[in-house]
Amino acid sequence: EDQKKQEDTKASDPYASDPERHPVLRVNCKKPFNAEPPSEILTESYITPHVFFFKRNHLPVPQVDPASYRLQVEGLPGGELSLSLEDLKTQFPKHTVTAAMQCAGNRRSDMNNIKEVQGLNWGVSAIGNAKWGGTRLRDVLLAAGFGPEVANWARHVHFEGLDKDVTGTAYGTSIPISKAISEEGDVLLAYEMNGEDLPPDHGFPLRVVVPGVVGARNVKWLGRIVISAEESASHWQQHDYKGFSPGTDWSKVDPKSAPAIQELPIQSAITVPADGAVIDRSEETLTVKGYAWSGGGREVVRVDVSLDGGNTWQVAQLRNGDEGETTEPSPPPGRAWAWKLWELTAPLPPQAEELEIICKAVDNSYNVQPDTILPIWNLRGLLNNAWHRVKVRVRED
Amino acid sequence: EDQKKQEDTKASDPYASDPERHPVLRVNCKKPFNAEPPSEILTESYITPHVFFFKRNHLPVPQVDPASYRLQVEGLPGGELSLSLEDLKTQFPKHTVTAAMQCAGNRRSDMNNIKEVQGLNWGVSAIGNAKWGGTRLRDVLLAAGFGPEVANWARHVHFEGLDKDVTGTAYGTSIPISKAISEEGDVLLAYEMNGEDLPPDHGFPLRVVVPGVVGARNVKWLGRIVISAEESASHWQQHDYKGFSPGTDWSKVDPKSAPAIQELPIQSAITVPADGAVIDRSEETLTVKGYAWSGGGREVVRVDVSLDGGNTWQVAQLRNGDEGETTEPSPPPGRAWAWKLWELTAPLPPQAEELEIICKAVDNSYNVQPDTILPIWNLRGLLNNAWHRVKVRVRED
Ligand SMILES: [Mo]
Ligand SMILES: [Mo]
Repeated sequence: EDQKKQEDTKASDPYASDPERHPVLRVNCKKPFNAEPPSEILTESYITPHVFFFKRNHLPVPQVDPASYRLQVEGLPGGELSLSLEDLKTQFPKHTVTAAMQCAGNRRSDMNNIKEVQGLNWGVSAIGNAKWGGTRLRDVLLAAGFGPEVANWARHVHFEGLDKDVTGTAYGTSIPISKAISEEGDVLLAYEMNGEDLPPDHGFPLRVVVPGVVGARNVKWLGRIVISAEESASHWQQHDYKGFSPGTDWSKVDPKSAPAIQELPIQSAITVPADGAVIDRSEETLTVKGYAWSGGGREVVRVDVSLDGGNTWQVAQLRNGDEGETTEPSPPPGRAWAWKLWELTAPLPPQAEELEIICKAVDNSYNVQPDTILPIWNLRGLLNNAWHRVKVRVRED
Repeated sequence: EDQKKQEDTKASDPYASDPERHPVLRVNCKKPFNAEPPSEILTESYITPHVFFFKRNHLPVPQVDPASYRLQVEGLPGGELSLSLEDLKTQFPKHTVTAAMQCAGNRRSDMNNIKEVQGLNWGVSAIGNAKWGGTRLRDVLLAAGFGPEVANWARHVHFEGLDKDVTGTAYGTSIPISKAISEEGDVLLAYEMNGEDLPPDHGFPLRVVVPGVVGARNVKWLGRIVISAEESASHWQQHDYKGFSPGTDWSKVDPKSAPAIQELPIQSAITVPADGAVIDRSEETLTVKGYAWSGGGREVVRVDVSLDGGNTWQVAQLRNGDEGETTEPSPPPGRAWAWKLWELTAPLPPQAEELEIICKAVDNSYNVQPDTILPIWNLRGLLNNAWHRVKVRVRED
């Protein structure tokens, strides 16, 4: 009878079976669930615990029975391949990759504050860094019959989720075949996050992890993979998750004029102190903390921090592990998938009553962040990677 | 006797046998020869003729006899490989790659104008786009014995030129092995530029072309290749061609703190109209032209142009061929080595007496150019990719 009641509720509310979430999360949307942690929690650990990892759901969380679950692989000459979770775990070597994942809408609220955009009002915490474990997509594609013949016509790999809207349309998207098939691309079909089974909000039992690529392509609750000559025709590939010129408004936007977002640009943000914080003059020094990351496997090589609105800059300390930990060696070129945490402790500038603190990062292609938001403004509020600025007040004793 | 006189001159002036150059070039330094074309000539053709292609020599141009020329390939277990020009042309398939090449100091003069830097005073034309023909470096490395065993320890490929300073030190540098050995890296040992033998100023008889990577690694007059576990120890790899924070001055610079520049960031510049040009109000429309390019094979997807100092932006037309030509299809992801030319024709803004024209480009990783120069200022004046700005006056009738 309890089960019947549950099913009735579910019929009226497709979100009724969504999992519980940590109460500290800042909820941008309840249904579908979209939430991020407070920024000061985000940089407390190098690996983001799954409860604090931002949740970006487009649809209700599907309930998947791991025993009957099957992944369909289609479009290859050998016909359809159907793999159970057990098959994926036992027929292929397990790989782990530490990779950050960022929503294209991270930092949208700052863009929205300057000029209104359409989208969820994310702060700076729609990003996280996790250790993903699973099967290499490359290995599955090779097992399914990918070879030189297929390479002649195949250009994209489509991913379809088991999350569906009321009309039965599943979340879907695609990535270039070159990224999917490359040994150095490190694309995973992940069944583990931070050493445990994927949590329901992060794609249980299987999700795609495309290191260096926008969150939107890292499809959760993966049901189907299709090899194709064409990009995914889905809404999320063709009409959303694209960047436009600041001069483009809704009356003249042409989705075909812009490429689907894949690799993301250089990014950094301040997580401590919080905007509006009050600092005691007696403190003498100020510690600023944050994260930095770049897409496409480019490694962050420097973070500059200003305590005076950009007049002078100091170089922050970077780390790629928790404090006190022996840090990992630099990854091979083009495979720096994880974020870096950074920190600067500097004398509190004398006299100043208010400080504008700014951070900006540089990656190993020497790409930098733009100074201001307005010239990268776009109607969907995507790709805000302008310098991050917070203001704090200094209280005299 | 004539020969003796020449040799006497050469003994006193190692630059005496340098080739003749086109008189239109703007010379930044005579010895060694460093020069660029006027910017309005630069964008007249999609493929830059060699006479107008910027010349960046670190040392005198060596005179190499193609008949006795040998390329040495060292560091591989099979021992040294020695290849004649004929060997390179006949024992390996010929490949052609259209690739732009840019000096790390391009646009240094604008940086120097804001705050003094050390280096040659390049304008916006230390960049060119050519069709290079030659042997794939990958093919030569494989022929020399590169295999899985070598892959275990090899990390870098060193290039040494035949150009030497008075102490006998040759120009040298290195690139990561991953770039050198990758099929998609398209690194060439080029013996042709735009369908003809390499000209003396561009490396005759053989140079390296590393698409997507800073000019400094594209070693000319190539004499020696060494496979190594270490980066080149040369001055140009370890002490020059690195980027630093704007707060770093000569008293505190630590070359080890920054990686050697390899891939370059997103770049664009205005070539027409020239800074300071005067435009007639009766013209009604204004045409702005320029180039855009990004390193690492990232494709330029958009150029925004402002005629009002950055208040409003219009999207320029891009092309990847000469005007009226059928343009080539988009290259595979990550292999967009060539530049794009762009153009915008727009109504002349009414009333304005002076226009500040700005361009900024976006690549397919959605990296953008920073707004201003000062926050990317560095003591060597490298990597200036801030928005390019020119001012023109409007003359009323
Ligand atoms: Mo997203
Ligand atoms: Mo250069």
